[in-house]
Amino acid sequence: MKNFVFHNTTKVIFGKGQVETVGEQVAAIGGKILLVTGEVSVKKTGLLDRVKEKMTMAGVEFVELSGIKPNPEIDSVRRGAAICKESGVDAVLALGGGSVIDASKVMAAGAVYDGDPWDFFEKKIKPANPLPVGVVLTISATGSEANGNAVVTNPAVAQKRAMYHPLWYPRFSILDPELTYTVPADQTAFGAVDILSHVFEQYFHDVDGTDLQDGFAETIMRSVIQGAKTALDDPDDYGSRANLMWGSTLALNGVIGAGAQGDWTCHMLGHELSAKYGLSHGAALAVVFPGWMKFMAERKTSRFVKFAKAVWNVDPKGKNELQTALEGIEATVRFFRDTLKVGVTLEDYGIGGEKIELMADAVIAHKGVDALGGLKRNDLIAIYKSAMG
Amino acid sequence: MKNFVFHNTTKVIFGKGQVETVGEQVAAIGGKILLVTGEVSVKKTGLLDRVKEKMTMAGVEFVELSGIKPNPEIDSVRRGAAICKESGVDAVLALGGGSVIDASKVMAAGAVYDGDPWDFFEKKIKPANPLPVGVVLTISATGSEANGNAVVTNPAVAQKRAMYHPLWYPRFSILDPELTYTVPADQTAFGAVDILSHVFEQYFHDVDGTDLQDGFAETIMRSVIQGAKTALDDPDDYGSRANLMWGSTLALNGVIGAGAQGDWTCHMLGHELSAKYGLSHGAALAVVFPGWMKFMAERKTSRFVKFAKAVWNVDPKGKNELQTALEGIEATVRFFRDTLKVGVTLEDYGIGGEKIELMADAVIAHKGVDALGGLKRNDLIAIYKSAMG
Repeated sequence: MKNFVFHNTTKVIFGKGQVETVGEQVAAIGGKILLVTGEVSVKKTGLLDRVKEKMTMAGVEFVELSGIKPNPEIDSVRRGAAICKESGVDAVLALGGGSVIDASKVMAAGAVYDGDPWDFFEKKIKPANPLPVGVVLTISATGSEANGNAVVTNPAVAQKRAMYHPLWYPRFSILDPELTYTVPADQTAFGAVDILSHVFEQYFHDVDGTDLQDGFAETIMRSVIQGAKTALDDPDDYGSRANLMWGSTLALNGVIGAGAQGDWTCHMLGHELSAKYGLSHGAALAVVFPGWMKFMAERKTSRFVKFAKAVWNVDPKGKNELQTALEGIEATVRFFRDTLKVGVTLEDYGIGGEKIELMADAVIAHKGVDALGGLKRNDLIAIYKSAMG
Repeated sequence: MKNFVFHNTTKVIFGKGQVETVGEQVAAIGGKILLVTGEVSVKKTGLLDRVKEKMTMAGVEFVELSGIKPNPEIDSVRRGAAICKESGVDAVLALGGGSVIDASKVMAAGAVYDGDPWDFFEKKIKPANPLPVGVVLTISATGSEANGNAVVTNPAVAQKRAMYHPLWYPRFSILDPELTYTVPADQTAFGAVDILSHVFEQYFHDVDGTDLQDGFAETIMRSVIQGAKTALDDPDDYGSRANLMWGSTLALNGVIGAGAQGDWTCHMLGHELSAKYGLSHGAALAVVFPGWMKFMAERKTSRFVKFAKAVWNVDPKGKNELQTALEGIEATVRFFRDTLKVGVTLEDYGIGGEKIELMADAVIAHKGVDALGGLKRNDLIAIYKSAMG
């Protein structure tokens, strides 16, 4: 086990009907709120009105910013930060999924900074004293509800950048699984890919003595696989929606990574696919991981054997290690393609290979070769190629 | 899964050599510290001097209170609170195990309260604005390093009382597994019993849909069983000491209990054994759990079957459910007795049955029958009797 610091300050309010507490939760962090939402779904379901009513009843004022898109863009963040300054907002409420939450975190930091919020991602300046952020989560996927991460895209420079800051943990997150009953099948599926991909990034490491972290990670993977299967068959199944939601949080709240060491290479490779082709986060990961796993099976065979046995119940009898490992990878790909019904190759999304070298160069330019788990430029190209179809 | 609120604010600083950071950690929470320690071991190992040196280098003043005993008594807490008031202390550093940490939490609350700290346990008053508490952990056992719990004994009324308060989470806890190399075998063993007992209390519940919590709990149990075995054979084995230490924290930092529901009956039964016979916390649990498990096997058979298979690898082939369940319980008792070498019956500690009815009455008077997982007075008596030998 490696040394680590674990400090997760988010208060999670989990369960049926917890959205009813939003007024009191918000009132505890601010008197005038920037209410940030995505596109239309929270209006259609009536959730936006319920939340506004609760805030009004709690005596909280608010201004609204709607229309945050998946892969949120820096312009929308700039707009949010400007509204905070103009309107004297003292806290931000993110009502939505990962994109809304990520954008809200950066708005809250930008609200007290005189320059451009993109500066945080260029490491020109560190966030200081951001406004407090609260969350009402509407989709189980990114884990942004209980961590200090934010991912923002800057189309002007065709870049998608992730950063972590210890002051970016939401003050509270309301996780009410019933709010996800209306999440469409494809978004439920991509959400499951996203959760699993967070676990994958932290699970296939080379650190010794991580029984605790491994067992936790395997538990989350099994639970999310089962939860996604059931939720796709029966979208109103509370238990599955609850497992997906708490699983999304546990996958990226730091607990399975503490003492282990993920390299997050696949997220880097996926971010380039989003930046260059506009592929959604979940779709990019559903493409990159199968390619990466096949490429890595020979390098990390014993780890993939462990994965195959613990997560997919692969019986190793009569197989060599590599065969067992590959069977686990095949089960993962089958689950993505046949159960979740998501595309698993670039071809599935109508993407050719013309920008592969460009993307590999961008990943290396951003991360440096040392941060990529020992992978070189040629390896990254090979992984992208193996994801082609 | 049940509704829950999860909010654990403790910053955990984990790993080899992390004790070297104590100066800067303490300086972040106070300028004048009450340094609380137990009996002699931190002096003998030189740890006390190292910690004092680091504090001095960081410009932190301190006053000392040593001699906190296992099952810490309210008088020592009163003394600590008084020193805080007299000396103008603004934070408390607990250097020790659960007893030192628990006592420190209550001193920190008592330091800003005009009355008697025992009032908190009698629910006469709620703690408010306690001084911040930091921890350097020296034994893996209670989990008090990252939760809001404290257990204090009041000999004047022969009572041992536990309470939780959200303001009682330590601000930071330094978890340096190397500090536990010198923990004697019997304390390592009782520490493992304590950790396992915390998991047991939260694992044998009746809540549906707790795959995540169950998998985490089973992971901790397996890891602690293996860690204790190895650490007893090789006290300087870092990996085992690390698993025991992080396992002790994860067992009681709220994560495996969130969404499940423990009833903590065995701790209540054990606290009475400590209060009435002075039995140590670990010894009391090593006696109560075997008795309780045997008593409960028929009532919660399927849960004990799950436990037997997941934790002890019991093969259910050719056995009925109850036989499988009992085999898991037998394995637990064997592990306590033969591997940990701790007494598992009252007889092993030279205790007869004369106070059983008195203890059962005290548990019911304190908790009320509804809080005891459906157990009645006669059931408690039966459990104590089955623990006799």
